Amino acid sequence: MNKSLRLYFLGGVGEIGKNMTAIEYGDHIIIVDCGSSFPPEDMPGVDLLIPDISYIIENKHKIKGIVLTHGHEDHIGSMPFLLKELGGTVPVYGSKLTLAFLEHKTEEYKIKKVKSVCVNDGDTVNIGCFNVEFIKVSHSISGAFALSINTPSGIIFHTGDYKIDYTPIDGKMTNLARIAEIGKKGVLLMLSESTNVEREGYTMSETTVGKSFDKLFSQNIGKRIIIATFSSNIHRLQQILDLADKYGRKIAFNGRSMLNSLEMATKIGELHYKAEDIVDIDKVSKLPPERVVIISTGAQGEPMSALARMASGETNSKITVGPMDTVIVSASPIPGNERMIYNVINNLYKKGASVVYGALEEVHVSGHACKEEIKLMLSLVKPRFLIPVHGEYRHLKQQAELAESLGIRQANILIPCIGACVNVKKNGIAIEKIVEAGNMFVDGYVIGDADSSVIKDRLNLGENGFLITIIKVSSKDNRMIGEPDIITRGIHALEKNTEQLKDIVTGTFLNSDYTGEENNQQLKADIRKDVRKWLLNNTLQRPMILPIIINV
Amino acid sequence: MNKSLRLYFLGGVGEIGKNMTAIEYGDHIIIVDCGSSFPPEDMPGVDLLIPDISYIIENKHKIKGIVLTHGHEDHIGSMPFLLKELGGTVPVYGSKLTLAFLEHKTEEYKIKKVKSVCVNDGDTVNIGCFNVEFIKVSHSISGAFALSINTPSGIIFHTGDYKIDYTPIDGKMTNLARIAEIGKKGVLLMLSESTNVEREGYTMSETTVGKSFDKLFSQNIGKRIIIATFSSNIHRLQQILDLADKYGRKIAFNGRSMLNSLEMATKIGELHYKAEDIVDIDKVSKLPPERVVIISTGAQGEPMSALARMASGETNSKITVGPMDTVIVSASPIPGNERMIYNVINNLYKKGASVVYGALEEVHVSGHACKEEIKLMLSLVKPRFLIPVHGEYRHLKQQAELAESLGIRQANILIPCIGACVNVKKNGIAIEKIVEAGNMFVDGYVIGDADSSVIKDRLNLGENGFLITIIKVSSKDNRMIGEPDIITRGIHALEKNTEQLKDIVTGTFLNSDYTGEENNQQLKADIRKDVRKWLLNNTLQRPMILPIIINV
Repeated sequence: MNKSLRLYFLGGVGEIGKNMTAIEYGDHIIIVDCGSSFPPEDMPGVDLLIPDISYIIENKHKIKGIVLTHGHEDHIGSMPFLLKELGGTVPVYGSKLTLAFLEHKTEEYKIKKVKSVCVNDGDTVNIGCFNVEFIKVSHSISGAFALSINTPSGIIFHTGDYKIDYTPIDGKMTNLARIAEIGKKGVLLMLSESTNVEREGYTMSETTVGKSFDKLFSQNIGKRIIIATFSSNIHRLQQILDLADKYGRKIAFNGRSMLNSLEMATKIGELHYKAEDIVDIDKVSKLPPERVVIISTGAQGEPMSALARMASGETNSKITVGPMDTVIVSASPIPGNERMIYNVINNLYKKGASVVYGALEEVHVSGHACKEEIKLMLSLVKPRFLIPVHGEYRHLKQQAELAESLGIRQANILIPCIGACVNVKKNGIAIEKIVEAGNMFVDGYVIGDADSSVIKDRLNLGENGFLITIIKVSSKDNRMIGEPDIITRGIHALEKNTEQLKDIVTGTFLNSDYTGEENNQQLKADIRKDVRKWLLNNTLQRPMILPIIINV
Repeated sequence: MNKSLRLYFLGGVGEIGKNMTAIEYGDHIIIVDCGSSFPPEDMPGVDLLIPDISYIIENKHKIKGIVLTHGHEDHIGSMPFLLKELGGTVPVYGSKLTLAFLEHKTEEYKIKKVKSVCVNDGDTVNIGCFNVEFIKVSHSISGAFALSINTPSGIIFHTGDYKIDYTPIDGKMTNLARIAEIGKKGVLLMLSESTNVEREGYTMSETTVGKSFDKLFSQNIGKRIIIATFSSNIHRLQQILDLADKYGRKIAFNGRSMLNSLEMATKIGELHYKAEDIVDIDKVSKLPPERVVIISTGAQGEPMSALARMASGETNSKITVGPMDTVIVSASPIPGNERMIYNVINNLYKKGASVVYGALEEVHVSGHACKEEIKLMLSLVKPRFLIPVHGEYRHLKQQAELAESLGIRQANILIPCIGACVNVKKNGIAIEKIVEAGNMFVDGYVIGDADSSVIKDRLNLGENGFLITIIKVSSKDNRMIGEPDIITRGIHALEKNTEQLKDIVTGTFLNSDYTGEENNQQLKADIRKDVRKWLLNNTLQRPMILPIIINV
């Protein structure tokens, strides 16, 4: 057995979303996070991207535990797929809130047996040959941890997702004192998140959002207030609940994930409010507008979300938006979502509502550390080796440069790629090999390879449509029966060209020396070629072409 | 004849791109701008969006002239389509640069006869019953005008696209004095651009970009410099040419539209450089890196652009990017392009290049007025009536609110929609009717209606793929011959389900009381229903289903 320390980067490096790292020493592996991400535009029809966990499946017997830093989708979203492979015996460690989100997810996927272990700030647990300490950090979800992982080779410090908030809503700050202590003991390797490394200075405190909200509540007395935000940001929900109480408004939750969050966070005691102040969304229209605040999903403009439905005035939306509404969009657009969000905002304006959003007011703060916070963290942890994680390549690269400017030697910093197996030795760090890894997609009940030809076909069909030619050929004399049929979908203005296309196909057949079914493949290729050429010359269209030959 | 002043908004209001307004008095119409826009993601395969000009075609005999404010695509991009309809007799007015861009475009579309009339700052021309004065404004393209249009009912002031740049590259400022004079004479109606109304303060001067570039040139002595920017921003190109001269570098232009701009702007004397300092892109690899600056297309991350090809290391790219390169992306992402741009930036970093872009340095400024500039313009023009233009609904709405805060009465401000015919009377302004207008798409040689079922089919095919079932039925006894065929594209993991699907189709046929071809429609509907149900239950996939019945 090769007793050295290896890390496997199965997600979260060089991409946004789906974080997953495996830490291996000898026969012992722990997995840190197992997230999912939303597919980009060039994967139409795909529901979800999950990590390729081939390496984990091959080394199933070595897995001693799964450690979750926090409950966001990009850190726990693929857990159902992982747990299905590992069965119910591997322990899962996380905060109360993280485990509540996980439980909701495993129930959805009908996974019955999960061996979950709830941990608190400062707890340490032994997992195989590792000892893991959980350290409180601030983030845009509560119950978030950094990890100090004691391995036989030395300490790995994993920041998780964090920010440094000196005025956190729950009064519990990122535990800088403990992090400094660990740094002083000596950290072999640091995994450090990179999301906001491009932004100068500090991330603002979550309490600044509360102050903006307070101002908006006081400016909008007499109007109904609708706030769209991320359902997992329990602290932001708490601030809204507190303001509703202060201004004498009832609260309604709109959208499935908001209701889930309310239920979950209430159950574990992380949301505080008077039960009688919560009203059902169906009852809101009966209350005076100025006595209500609605907390809604859809802060990213998702077309099926509660906010998008309200904005488009869908008849089955429970809320009719109008001039008596002030809508606060408390979020920043995730890159790629800009158009969706602005569509929703335009629609809200058209309905006569006032809209407050990022470009106009401070109604959202990030959950991730900016440059100065990253510098503080790097300076406290003072690792021998650094691996920037959680970001696209440009983020990882920029953190590497930032770390260099703080005195970490370039040779001691490594930027991994997906699948990288990094061997950590006392005197050096290197990518030893690349294991099978990458994106798998979930599409309905199917889990597949994200580079599959199916996706390519879809992209092609979506861009160009298709054209089917059908000819019937008599088996008696190998002559065509009747004329060809042409069927198209997703191609423009071909009605008037159908007769010409029939002539093309007939011509191809007549020129083909057809002597029977054995020529079908060749004839299909010829038809495809001739039809493609004609279409390109006459319409500039490039549909997928499917020739069908019926031998009768 | 109804002698009153009417405006027709055929583009540019409630959307980004494709500006077009028609101004009508009695039998006289002038058209201001005729732009195109790029299709959003939900119009796959569409090349270009152009305005529906049905109203113009119906009133062809009234068109006295076309006035172009400047040469950007969203203001001149649809001119070839308009000119094809109007023929070569309608005069087109614009600045030297605008007309150079137009000429390039009409050549591309093989339009021979264009009656173009070059105008300068301060020129006035009579067009039908209108008198149009062209007023210099600063923008991200030179040769941009605001328009003061004298109509029998009063003056219409059209800002065009503008910013107020106190230190413009060519020394010629937005003509505030003349605008103030016109305002003093009394403006009946102002059309005022809204793009940057969400941004506080002032837009920075184009010269600040030059200063940033200068700093970067001096920091990157010894390295090759590649700058990607908008090819139409001649002033920015001039600044780069000047810096190349200052730092003793040769200049190569990369990408078709860059080469076009170079040629055009040189021809009309708007770019100044020593001819021997320009080198062919093919020769660049033979020069020492520190002696070259490359000006490239692709600042929006367009996948086929010169920059994207360099970044992805395409073998037919003329430039190999590496650690000796500093790449400056001198542009802001147009909403929707973020992912493409960041892909390119990540790829450049992976090649070892240094990358400088908006998030890190001041290497780009907008060409549009921010809030304080809009306030200045509104205050100088002091119109009786205001119509905010050039923006999505939220921008128009916010300018309306801004104008109200400056004392323009709410009743005197109108937000039009696409197709709005606005009747302007001395005592009021109102939408009189909505004419046929909206998006037409260009797809290859086809021009079509953007709401067409073809686009819906493509979206459906792109999301879900398709499934064809083929059965042969004997005309003698109405029995199925052989077994059904199943063909799919863009559907996951159906190989193993093919046999079951054949059974489903066979079952449907057997249950159908088929008595001949007259049942084909019903049988197809039944097959579609049964297959859809089975797929949904067993795979959660929803392909387009096409049953084909061959009667033999």
